[in-house]
Amino acid sequence: MRGWKFTKTDEPLELVEQPDPQPAADEVILAVKAAGLCHTDVGILHDPSWLPLIKAPVILGHECAGQIIKVGTNVHDFKVGDRVGVSPQNPETGQTIGCMRDGGYSDQVAVPANQLVPLPDGVSYVQGASATDAGMSSYHPLFVTGQAKPGMKVGIIGIGGLGEFAVNMAVIAGCDVYAVDTKAAARQWAQKIGAKGVYADICDLKQADVPLIIDFAGFDTTTNQAVKAVKTGGTVVVVGMGILHSTIDTGELITRNITLTGNSGGTPADIANVYKYFQTGKMHLDLPTTSFDKIPEGLVSLEKGEVVGRLIAARA
Amino acid sequence: MRGWKFTKTDEPLELVEQPDPQPAADEVILAVKAAGLCHTDVGILHDPSWLPLIKAPVILGHECAGQIIKVGTNVHDFKVGDRVGVSPQNPETGQTIGCMRDGGYSDQVAVPANQLVPLPDGVSYVQGASATDAGMSSYHPLFVTGQAKPGMKVGIIGIGGLGEFAVNMAVIAGCDVYAVDTKAAARQWAQKIGAKGVYADICDLKQADVPLIIDFAGFDTTTNQAVKAVKTGGTVVVVGMGILHSTIDTGELITRNITLTGNSGGTPADIANVYKYFQTGKMHLDLPTTSFDKIPEGLVSLEKGEVVGRLIAARA
Repeated sequence: MRGWKFTKTDEPLELVEQPDPQPAADEVILAVKAAGLCHTDVGILHDPSWLPLIKAPVILGHECAGQIIKVGTNVHDFKVGDRVGVSPQNPETGQTIGCMRDGGYSDQVAVPANQLVPLPDGVSYVQGASATDAGMSSYHPLFVTGQAKPGMKVGIIGIGGLGEFAVNMAVIAGCDVYAVDTKAAARQWAQKIGAKGVYADICDLKQADVPLIIDFAGFDTTTNQAVKAVKTGGTVVVVGMGILHSTIDTGELITRNITLTGNSGGTPADIANVYKYFQTGKMHLDLPTTSFDKIPEGLVSLEKGEVVGRLIAARA
Repeated sequence: MRGWKFTKTDEPLELVEQPDPQPAADEVILAVKAAGLCHTDVGILHDPSWLPLIKAPVILGHECAGQIIKVGTNVHDFKVGDRVGVSPQNPETGQTIGCMRDGGYSDQVAVPANQLVPLPDGVSYVQGASATDAGMSSYHPLFVTGQAKPGMKVGIIGIGGLGEFAVNMAVIAGCDVYAVDTKAAARQWAQKIGAKGVYADICDLKQADVPLIIDFAGFDTTTNQAVKAVKTGGTVVVVGMGILHSTIDTGELITRNITLTGNSGGTPADIANVYKYFQTGKMHLDLPTTSFDKIPEGLVSLEKGEVVGRLIAARA
């Protein structure tokens, strides 16, 4: 099998040829059909502060879906031929594929069975891969941490990769969605797919009187303004890590009983739920594709900000 | 009846003599037996930014307990002779006694029946008054917002008026209490009444691995350090308004899934629960008393920082 291996910071990914992986007792081997290109991979390539989270050399790709071609002796819930997505982080060991062990930028990958999520009929491998990281990371803050419900007003700040998932799912779930983005194109998109209101300025979100705001930007002022804009007694969930601090008006937080919660990651159950949203046929997402051979070029485009939506390496 | 009336900022309280109050249909009249002296009253006396919250001229005193001497025609749950505490803010109108209508720095006060909390046998009027503000405002963040439970580790920052209530109740409830205060005397006190650990520095609280921290100080760094010290997945409740902003490490908040919640006030049910803690006979609180005639002098002592514990004006 072949795969794109990370060796060290600022070195290009290396296309390696190595023996096909064999499954441990609780693992399966996937033929990788789709693998998402993530800003995290750009970070790993160039920022040495990622090194403690990486066991180099390692094949990257933490966001993938594929078809099972081998199963370990203790695996009973999955069989050869099953279509599955992969939850990036192992719920028991905390190990993430494509970081601490080989990932999906490859022909084949070994994955512990407890990270597998069945891919339902009608959901493509490309959709399946996109849901494992961007989908999960927007589903969890919105519906689990934020407890969004049908009929509830929800504010969504930052309509990028995660924000697009969130706007889609919140609209489909029957929430009244109010979306904020500085980019006019993003606001138009949100309005077109069903947002009740769109704003360029978070302060204007106050008039919508929303009890829940998800901040997918996380640029200090976005979080602080969200705390001021949310309804009294409401909740702000911060996901975006644009700037790693925020000066919060604690007078506002205290006198208006506001909750500010940080959220990272999610669970295999979240991914299964995102697949149900794809099954509705109502998700409007840009999921452009490239080939596995062109993953390094794709990561460069991502770094340059040339990619609209989630770029996925796909094979038939 | 006589009472201490606030007229305008930086004017001394005026001892007024006026007709005895008569109860509206849903009100009772209390003979005031105890009224707590609060830093809020010092603020009202000298800081004009309080004026929008005050309907001057008004008799101050938002923290009181007394005996019912008259009942309105629609009041059926209380009778003449009942001993009661008063929840400061009306749950329906939002009106606070001693701010928007006459309060407890007086012989008699009219109070809507939905603000009354029965004072159980064995709980004095002085204790009854102290529980209505300081007690409620520490019970709510600890047990309602913070969901402290027996056996749970709890960090408490700032062992002043509210913090003393919180340490007492958390210890009695069977929590493992870790208290933080810069003052050695406060730490010694907390250890003596049953804290498992005491620290001068919030950063040291991290070693106790507590899932819940209540910040009764609220001095920017206290809140930020609490976010860093709390266990992964944990909650910081901020109550203290020492400085009205805090620069939070959102990277920490997000990657460790921390929740930061603001909390102000509480409910009559909280006050009733604080009375149950007093009934255990295990509450260790300094509740020095003065006379109603000396309320102005008491507020000056409070302003000068000369008061240890909660100062209560009391009569037999």
